[in-house]
Order: sequence, then structure tokens, then C-alpha cells
Amino acid sequence: MSSFTPAQSDDVSIATIRALAADVVAKANSGHPGAPMGMAPVAHVLYSRFMNVNPKNSKWFNRDRFVLSNGHACALQYVLLHLLGHKLSMDDLKAFRIEVTTGPLGQGFGNGVGLAVAQAHLAAVFNKPGFDLINNFTYVFAGDGCLMEGVASEAASLAGHLQLGNLIVIYDDNHISIDGDTAVAFTENVEQRFSSYGWQVLHVDNGDSDLPAIHKAIVEAKLEKNKPTIIRLKTTIGFGSKQQGTHGVHGSPLKADDIQALKTKFGLPADQSFYVPSATYDAYAEIGKRGASLEAEWNSLLGSYGHKYPQEHAELLRRISGELPANWEQSLPVYKSTDPAQASRKLSEITLTSLAPVLPELLGGSADLTSSNLTKVKGSVDFQPPSTGLGNYAGTYIRYGVREHGMGAIANGIHAYGGIIPYVATFLNFVSYAAGAVRLSALSGHQVIWVATHDSIGLGEDGPTHQPIETAIHFRAMPNLAFWRPADGNETSAAYLVALKSRKTPSILSLSRQNLPNLEASTIEKAAKGGYVVHEVEGEDLTIVSTGSEVAIAVEAAAKLNAEGIKTRVVSLPCWFVFDKQPQEYRMSVLRSGAPILSLEALSTAGWAKYSHEQYGLPAWGASGPYQKVYEKFGITGSNIAVVGKKVADFYKQRGAPVVSPLVKAFTI
Amino acid sequence: MSSFTPAQSDDVSIATIRALAADVVAKANSGHPGAPMGMAPVAHVLYSRFMNVNPKNSKWFNRDRFVLSNGHACALQYVLLHLLGHKLSMDDLKAFRIEVTTGPLGQGFGNGVGLAVAQAHLAAVFNKPGFDLINNFTYVFAGDGCLMEGVASEAASLAGHLQLGNLIVIYDDNHISIDGDTAVAFTENVEQRFSSYGWQVLHVDNGDSDLPAIHKAIVEAKLEKNKPTIIRLKTTIGFGSKQQGTHGVHGSPLKADDIQALKTKFGLPADQSFYVPSATYDAYAEIGKRGASLEAEWNSLLGSYGHKYPQEHAELLRRISGELPANWEQSLPVYKSTDPAQASRKLSEITLTSLAPVLPELLGGSADLTSSNLTKVKGSVDFQPPSTGLGNYAGTYIRYGVREHGMGAIANGIHAYGGIIPYVATFLNFVSYAAGAVRLSALSGHQVIWVATHDSIGLGEDGPTHQPIETAIHFRAMPNLAFWRPADGNETSAAYLVALKSRKTPSILSLSRQNLPNLEASTIEKAAKGGYVVHEVEGEDLTIVSTGSEVAIAVEAAAKLNAEGIKTRVVSLPCWFVFDKQPQEYRMSVLRSGAPILSLEALSTAGWAKYSHEQYGLPAWGASGPYQKVYEKFGITGSNIAVVGKKVADFYKQRGAPVVSPLVKAFTI
Repeated sequence: MSSFTPAQSDDVSIATIRALAADVVAKANSGHPGAPMGMAPVAHVLYSRFMNVNPKNSKWFNRDRFVLSNGHACALQYVLLHLLGHKLSMDDLKAFRIEVTTGPLGQGFGNGVGLAVAQAHLAAVFNKPGFDLINNFTYVFAGDGCLMEGVASEAASLAGHLQLGNLIVIYDDNHISIDGDTAVAFTENVEQRFSSYGWQVLHVDNGDSDLPAIHKAIVEAKLEKNKPTIIRLKTTIGFGSKQQGTHGVHGSPLKADDIQALKTKFGLPADQSFYVPSATYDAYAEIGKRGASLEAEWNSLLGSYGHKYPQEHAELLRRISGELPANWEQSLPVYKSTDPAQASRKLSEITLTSLAPVLPELLGGSADLTSSNLTKVKGSVDFQPPSTGLGNYAGTYIRYGVREHGMGAIANGIHAYGGIIPYVATFLNFVSYAAGAVRLSALSGHQVIWVATHDSIGLGEDGPTHQPIETAIHFRAMPNLAFWRPADGNETSAAYLVALKSRKTPSILSLSRQNLPNLEASTIEKAAKGGYVVHEVEGEDLTIVSTGSEVAIAVEAAAKLNAEGIKTRVVSLPCWFVFDKQPQEYRMSVLRSGAPILSLEALSTAGWAKYSHEQYGLPAWGASGPYQKVYEKFGITGSNIAVVGKKVADFYKQRGAPVVSPLVKAFTI
Repeated sequence: MSSFTPAQSDDVSIATIRALAADVVAKANSGHPGAPMGMAPVAHVLYSRFMNVNPKNSKWFNRDRFVLSNGHACALQYVLLHLLGHKLSMDDLKAFRIEVTTGPLGQGFGNGVGLAVAQAHLAAVFNKPGFDLINNFTYVFAGDGCLMEGVASEAASLAGHLQLGNLIVIYDDNHISIDGDTAVAFTENVEQRFSSYGWQVLHVDNGDSDLPAIHKAIVEAKLEKNKPTIIRLKTTIGFGSKQQGTHGVHGSPLKADDIQALKTKFGLPADQSFYVPSATYDAYAEIGKRGASLEAEWNSLLGSYGHKYPQEHAELLRRISGELPANWEQSLPVYKSTDPAQASRKLSEITLTSLAPVLPELLGGSADLTSSNLTKVKGSVDFQPPSTGLGNYAGTYIRYGVREHGMGAIANGIHAYGGIIPYVATFLNFVSYAAGAVRLSALSGHQVIWVATHDSIGLGEDGPTHQPIETAIHFRAMPNLAFWRPADGNETSAAYLVALKSRKTPSILSLSRQNLPNLEASTIEKAAKGGYVVHEVEGEDLTIVSTGSEVAIAVEAAAKLNAEGIKTRVVSLPCWFVFDKQPQEYRMSVLRSGAPILSLEALSTAGWAKYSHEQYGLPAWGASGPYQKVYEKFGITGSNIAVVGKKVADFYKQRGAPVVSPLVKAFTI
């Protein structure tokens, strides 16, 4: 691999990739042909000379990872997958866009950093002298748009700090974005910027045809072991089109005559669409063979490793499989109602401390709020480059810096690698900074656990800028995301239980800064259903449904109401997502017909009408002050909620009509 | 100002600021003393030698702007405001934290860029030879945390491109954040990074006591007219404390004995809290006098300008006042139901085109989606540095690049400056990238208008990564934010009408990619109420309430149902926030009791139970494909909604009980 040996098929393969990308987008009549056509040479050199992948087993653990961060160029990825012999037929190419989509700009860059973090970590944990089992590279293609996004800047700065030598980013410097020439908005010196982050910076001036230069840059990138590398590759967007180098080829299909002329220019049959010369198929079949043989070698190495290190071998296989160790749940803390009140962020720390020894796949971190989030298990080592003297790559705690969005995107990449369950932390309100990454966790099914502390006006003095209002409903409305707001110790354990078992679902654990008493009725089992009855009475006049820090207030209000003869039940609903998955019969037993249901949460009431007839919460922003005073200001106290509860009970009694549970619906979608 | 002349009072004033910051935080028993103490020297030099402000009139239009981006250091700002003689008494200082809060990290940096954009723009529009009316500087204090945040990176890159010479950032390089030494996560070369963005980069090695060096750096910063400047100022966090330079002084009050020792060291009375020597009050009174005199000079210049340029003068005064010109509303497009169907993004473009000549305060822009958002008025000039040859500072269209979060923070700063109404654009789904900035628009009352196109599965081929699901409810649940989803031309005009009249409220206009027919019943007046009846029948069996692109589908379903004898009303509810402000009587006439209400929206149904008994929407993610096919896949068609509507009407008829409007409530918060 040290110097480039041209193959006869190189030129025709690159021409084929370019023509296929144009065909795919034209046939779909929607898409981005320009970047795939411009990046065809580097994609071909990378795949034909460097990528260690086995199309027959796309899950091979030590494969090189490839991320297309400029995801609108996905036609390129589809074409490559097809040529390599993945399960992507020519018919699939023709049906481009029906089943698969790719990510918003900047995310892939962060994912790439996460993949490289995961590789470095697992290598440090499992590799042994003579057993360089985990040593793959992560290649990221990124465009101008990716590099403009803050999420990529955050991830890049951290990647430089972390000295991730196996991360190689190829920046398609084609000078065109949707608004036209990047000169209108993006004139920074990208090379200098990445140099400032501590990256190795290389460049290729002619990315359109100088294959040896592309090859040389990738070789150099691989040789630098202590820095991530960015290769600035100058390309001509839509190379070969009559409109090459212009915005005209960025996001619209090429015209039919343009495609024909392009094929003629490239020596391909002008009248054939989706044409692949046999030389190209043959060349790509060789790549597959090389990958298969590399995997076979690796499997053999893994076998020897198993003989010499049977325990590590078994553990590695378990980690790769994603199965949790037997009986790990027994390490979850269990509480009695007589146990002292604690903040749920503290309960989370206790849980993490208890789980860390049995679940080494937990790789935690915080966006510079460690002492507030309480996410670092005592005695744990930082994930740091050894040269810093601050930790090592086997360390299980990442200092993300004040980079919430980057942290979220990196965590997605860590989970995508396999063998690790990442948890990340910030204040609940600042999970919103990372909303783009959280959304992709949910959409792509990444098991990322957000430890989101300081989850209401209960944080007190920091005031409205830090006090979530709309945050809970934002994430509750996101598909495939479990938003937990536990009320006590057992509920916190339940949240971790379900989050850790949900291999395809991210979770946000919304946790209090202030102390919460342990409920009498709570158990891990009940809370793991997402909702359950905390205080039961028959023939009730009212049910109060609440979550997190307000459940104890609801219990206090109910006690007052019951004392006044207004029979009041209390329901805790820590996770809507999980509760909604329970059988209708169970749900109806929790939020039953017969009496009005009043919701209580120190957040916006938005969304609660799904589970209740009446809603109590914050009318607008929070306020700054000691937390008890802030709660009083907004009437979220046992005595005021008792007053409100009485109003609700009276109101529905006066109405006279039978009260039907809000869960009773005319149809389901 | 060219070289530093020491004053006798400098040292004591700096000591006083440090001691006051420690006292303020100690008294509140919560806050961050370290950065205020560390930045006291630069704050003193800046205010005593450079800042042109008049404490007697904090609204003086050409005042220098000051942004504390590391907002947790707000004790510093309070102390300065007090010393300067603003309406902030010593008692207010003692009650620190009760009423005022500051922003999350990184936002202030972006706000500063926006303030500088506004200055450059208004200068280009209004200044005349001999009348350098608008020429203030914007000073931003920022810490390590600000510089780690992606929002600041985005804003910094654009500021460099825009060559904002009047922007001066002072970076408090104190090497401490919450997680301890910044060596754990932030080791990039900040100077090199800002140099890569095209900034002038200066540094002061001893920010603790080298006042001449601080002075010199600010002088140099002001002299550079074509680049923003960042001054890296090395300071010792918590200077003077026993724990200076450590994490111990970052976010917790100093101990009483530490404060006493510090005061003794500084030559202040150790036993007095909140002590201000008269020399300091005198020195700061001088600053105020200087500012008052500068304002008087400026007012005189403005007067002469009025004689020479009466028209511009009148317009400038109008812009400063924030009043819209008389009769501007008459420029809003009005539609008949026979007008052709158009996408609401196109209707937005028509509105902007019509308004631009009468509302020159509109300063638009897009995050690199101009041709999709349709936000650039034909013939408008780009806001660009003249040297680029791409526009000039009087231009009214900003090319933000792919930088949504930076764009939002910059827009907040633009609005904070005054005289401008910023509108910004991206796809609705990517407004989420900017959630942190949008939240601060709402909290601080910045009139920023988001043109958020491609607002549902109606965008078609880009698929789930681009199709909002949870986005609408996220922003609907945010206090003081008007989220509009107009259904046709008149509703789009109404959205602009209300958004432009709401001087303290940001708006998001959620707009379609696909064409929408004009409704028969829509008028600007009715839509401006946030909700109204689109199709009325008496004695209804069903009401369908909908928004945006689904209203026409609801109308189609209602026609089918009415034909079948199921009397069906249709309500359009383009803006919950505005509808909720209408009198209860009006709201009850729109969503009345008597028959079930079914909501319809091609988004998550979350939140809709507040206005309806039954909800139809998307069960989870969207899908990729031509938009009609995607709508069919999810059953959002006139015929399927007619089927669902019938089920709903039947279900409630069978139940037999009177149907009560969901707006009838037992209490209001």
C-alpha cells in the first residue's frame, strides 16, 4: 500500500461510478448527483486500495468504518455497496430513495469521531501483545456543509484533543453548496482550523484525476498514529457534466443529454443506463475477496486469542453480541420507603456506581458538568490519550467539554461501533442543544443514555435559562425515545433497567437536583411498566397523575384531600413511551374511568391532556431563587394542589356526566 | 486613548470589583465568583477608558454594546452596572439572583456577532459623509466554555467572513471550567483557530495586573477595521482568593475567611461587605459623565443630520423607535379561493417581496437553503463586505452558511441592537439545531422570524431525517413563541401580520413545500386570531381541526362526510399561541361543545388533546418518496380521514353522553 500501483480498471471504474450516480439520481428524479460524481476517484482509491471490509459479512467487527457525512451524496454509497456485492441489487439502485435516508449535515462527522473513540477504547481494553485484534480505521467523507456546522467543530476539537490516530476525514473541497459558491459564506482557512485542533492536515490539489496523490495522502494519514487526519481534496462537483463545478449539479438531476454526453466523454455506452463494465465488477469482486480473506485471518487470530485469553475472549464475544451479562439486574439498587430522601441525580450516581463493575460496556461522560451530573463513578479512569498523563484509552469516562451537540453525535458513533453502551450527561435544558443528535439516536436506533439532571425549576438559582419548560414534551413526542422522569430510588433503578435492556432505543433520564423521598408503593418492577398506581383508593373522586419530583407533592396533596373526604388516587407515570406499550387493560387500570384525572408536573402542561382531564404545571418560564421558593411561587405544593384537586373533583361532580378515561379512544392510528 | 495613562483609582477600583463580586456571590450563597474576580482588570480598563455608554440613558442608540457571553460571571456585570450608576442599587446587588438570569454558554458570542452585523448594516444604510452616526463597537467577554460550544464556532466563522471590524471579543483564558483544568478536554490552539476564521488575534499574557497591555490590545483591536478581533487574555480565576487559579473558585462562593483575607490583601476593610471607596464611585461617575457628554454630542450630530437629510433622519428615528410605517399592512397579499394553489413557502416569498419595499427593517437570510426556503427577495443585495464584490453592508440578505444555531444567536443579537427585524430560514426540522437560540429569543423577547419550510412529510423524497415529527409541539410548548402553520395565502399573510406586529415575541412560520389551495373562508383578519371556522354547519356530528397543508384535506374529508349525512365542521388553527390569547367566548365558538372534535396534522399528535377529543397524525417517523405517496401511506387523504371521521362521530353517538369542548376546564393556572 505504500505507493500507488495503477490498475487498468481504475479509470473505467471511476467513470462507471460517476455515470451510475448520475443515472440513479436521474431515474429517481430527485437527489444530489454532483458530490458523488466529484468524489468518485477518492471513493474508488479508498475502496480498491485501503478499505478492509467483507461484503459477505457487513458485521465483521474489525472492518474499517465508512461514514458519508455529506449524506446527500448517498447515491455514491449505494453505488459502492452495489459494486462491492452487498445485498443491494441494480433494481434497488433504480428504486433509489424509497427505503433509505441519510443524516443531516455535520452529524456524520461526529459519528466518525465516536467510531474512532470506540475503536481506541476497545483496542485498549482487549488487544494484547501479538493480538492487535481491534485496529480498524474510520474514514469519513465530509463536505463544506458538514464543516460549517457547529456539531462538527465541537467533535473535531475533541478528536484532536483525544489524538484519535485512526480517524481519517476526507473533505470534499468542491466550493459549492446550495446557495452557490462557498465564497458567499465560508471563507475560513479550513486547513489552519484543523491544525489548531491538533489534527494532521493534508491536501490533494487534483482530486479529479490524481489517483497517486490521493493514494499517498491516505497512506500518510494511516501512518500518523497520534493525530486524526483531514485530507482536503479539491474536486470538481459534477465532474464530467456540462455544468461541472457549478451549483447546477449540486442538488438536481442532470438532464438526459448531459448524461449521454458525459458517458461518451468517459468512453461508456451513451445509450445505456445503469451500465457496469465487467472490468469494474471484477475489480470490486477482488476487493470483496481481499476483505473475506482478511476476515478469515482475523477470525483465526481471534481463535488463538481465545486459547491464550479465554476470559477476555468470552467477554469480547459477549460485548460484540450486545448481550448483557447474566443477572446484571441484581446489581440495581433497591430502596425502602424509609430510606433517606435523595436527589435522583444522586440516585443515578449510586446506580452507575453499582452497575459499573458488572457492565464494563458503560462508557460515560459529561459536557463539563461532571460534579453536577454526578456521572463519574468514583475511582474510574478518564478516557484520555496516555501522553496527557490524565488517563488512558481503556478509561471509561470521557471529558466531552462544553460540547453537547458534539457529544450526542459522538455517542451515536460509539454505539454504532458496537460493544459499548454510551451514556452522556448535561442539564436537561441543554439536551436541547443536542436535539439534532438525539433525533438521530432515535431514528437510527442507537442506545444512548442521556443523564439529564437539574430537570425543572427545582434547580433553583440558575433561573429560567436553565429551567426546562418545553423540553419534556419535545422529547416525549419524539418517536423511539424513552423519556424517563423517575420519582425516587426504585424508579431510577427501573429507568436504568429498561434503558439498558433497550438495545435499539435511546433514553433520556430526567433527574432532579433536589432530594426526593422514596415512595411507599414504588418497586422496580412496577415502575418498569412506565406507569403505576402509587396510592390506591376505591370509588375515588380524583386521580392525580404526576412524574419525578412532583409525585411526592401529589402524594402530599392526596393525603390532605383524603383527610377532607375527597378520595384521591395517585399515579406515577415516569415514562410515557414505555407506559404506552403496556396492554390497554393495564393502562386502563392505572388511568381508569370514573373520576377526573389531574396531571401535575413542574413543566409545560403540553401533552398531558392525553392522560388527564385537567392539567397543572407552569404557565410560562420558571424563576430564579431557592428551589422551595420557586415551587411556592408557582403553587406546586401539597396544599395548593389539594385546593386545585378539590376544584377539579367538584367541577366534574357538578357536571354530573360519567367521567371517561382519556385513554378511551374511537380509533388507533 | 492611544496609550495608557494610569489613574490613582485604578488599583482600588479593580480590588473593589473583585471584592464586590465575592461579596455578591457569598451573600446569595450561590453563583460564580471566580471569573468576575479574574476579569475585573479588563472590565475596569474597558469601562474606564473605552466604553461609550451613558448610564442615564441606557437606550442611547450609538452606545457601545457589551455582551457577557460567559453569563455565569454575571456578578461582574451587576457590579459594573451599580458602579456606573445604572438603576441597580446596592440592595439589588445584595439580592443577587432573584430577578435576573443570563444565558447559556456560546449564545452571547453569537449575539455579539449579531450586534456587530446590525451596526455595520445600519451604518451603511444611514451614515453620510460627515455624519458617522452609527459607529459603536461591540465588546464580548467570553470564556473557555463559550469557545467550546459549536454555536460560537459557527458565529465566529461567519463574523470573520463578514469582516466585522467593530467586533471585539475578550477571551478569558483562565484554564478552568466545571470539570477542572481545561487540559482535560480543551487543548486546541484558540489563537490559530480564530486566525483561520480571518480574525485579528491579539493576546495579553498578564491579564491580572498588566493594565497597559490590556489597554494596548483594545486600542489595536479598535484600529483594525476589516477584521473582528479576539484578545486572548490570560487571567487567574478567583484572583486574590486562597484558591485562586483552581476549580474551587469557579462555581461556589468563597468562604468568609477567604474573603476577609482577600480584602486585607487588597487594602480594603476586611470587616466590611459591599464596600465601595469613594475614589471608585468618583472614577465611575466620570465614566458616566463622559458618556453623557458623548451622547449629547451625538444628539447634536443627529440634529444636523436631520437638517441635511430630513427623510433619512425621520426614517432612522422610526427605525430606532421600532414603530412600523403607517399602512404597511396594506402591502400584505390578499387571496381569493379561485387563486391558484401555491406552496406556502412560495406564498411567504410573495409576502416578503411585497413587504420588502415598505419594511426596509427586514434583514433576511438563510442557512444555505435560499433556493428552497425562497427567502431572498428578487433584486435584493447581499449583506457582504464590499471587498468580496458580492454585495455590501447595506444589503438586506445574509448568507448564513450551514450554521443554523449560529444564525439563531446572531439574529437575537441583530434584534437586540434595534432598528432591524431579522428573519432567518432553514427547513423546519433543522430549526431544532438552533433550539438553544430560539429559546433565548422567546425568553428575552427578541422578534426573530423563522421561515421554516419543508414542514412535514410533504417534503417527500428527503425522508425521515428531514421530516419533522416532534418539532411543532416542541415549539408550541415554548412560552412566548408564536408557531404558525398557515394553510393558504391569506393565512400566510396573517402569520406575517401578527409576527411583524409582535415586537417582543419570536415567530416560527412553518411552511409547506407542496402546493396548497386557497380556502373559501379564509381571510387575513380571521386567521390573525390564530384559529377560526373554515367550514360551518349547524348541529354538527363532528368538527375536524387542522393546520397548514392538512386543512384542505380536512375540507375534502368534511365534504365527503357531509355528503354522507354526517354533518362536519372544519376549523383551521394556524397558531395555538395566538388562539389561546383570544377571549374564551370566541375560542368556545370555534371549538364548541356538542360534537366530538378530531384533530388532523401530518406530525406527531402530541399536544392536540388540548383542543380535540380524538387525534389523527403520524404514528412515528415519516417516509421517503413522492409526497402524495407518503401522504397515502399514512392515511392522510380526504377519503381516509372521512372514514376516521365517521368512526369518531359514531363512537361519541354510541356513548350517548353530551360532548363537552376540551376548552371547558375546571381551573386556569
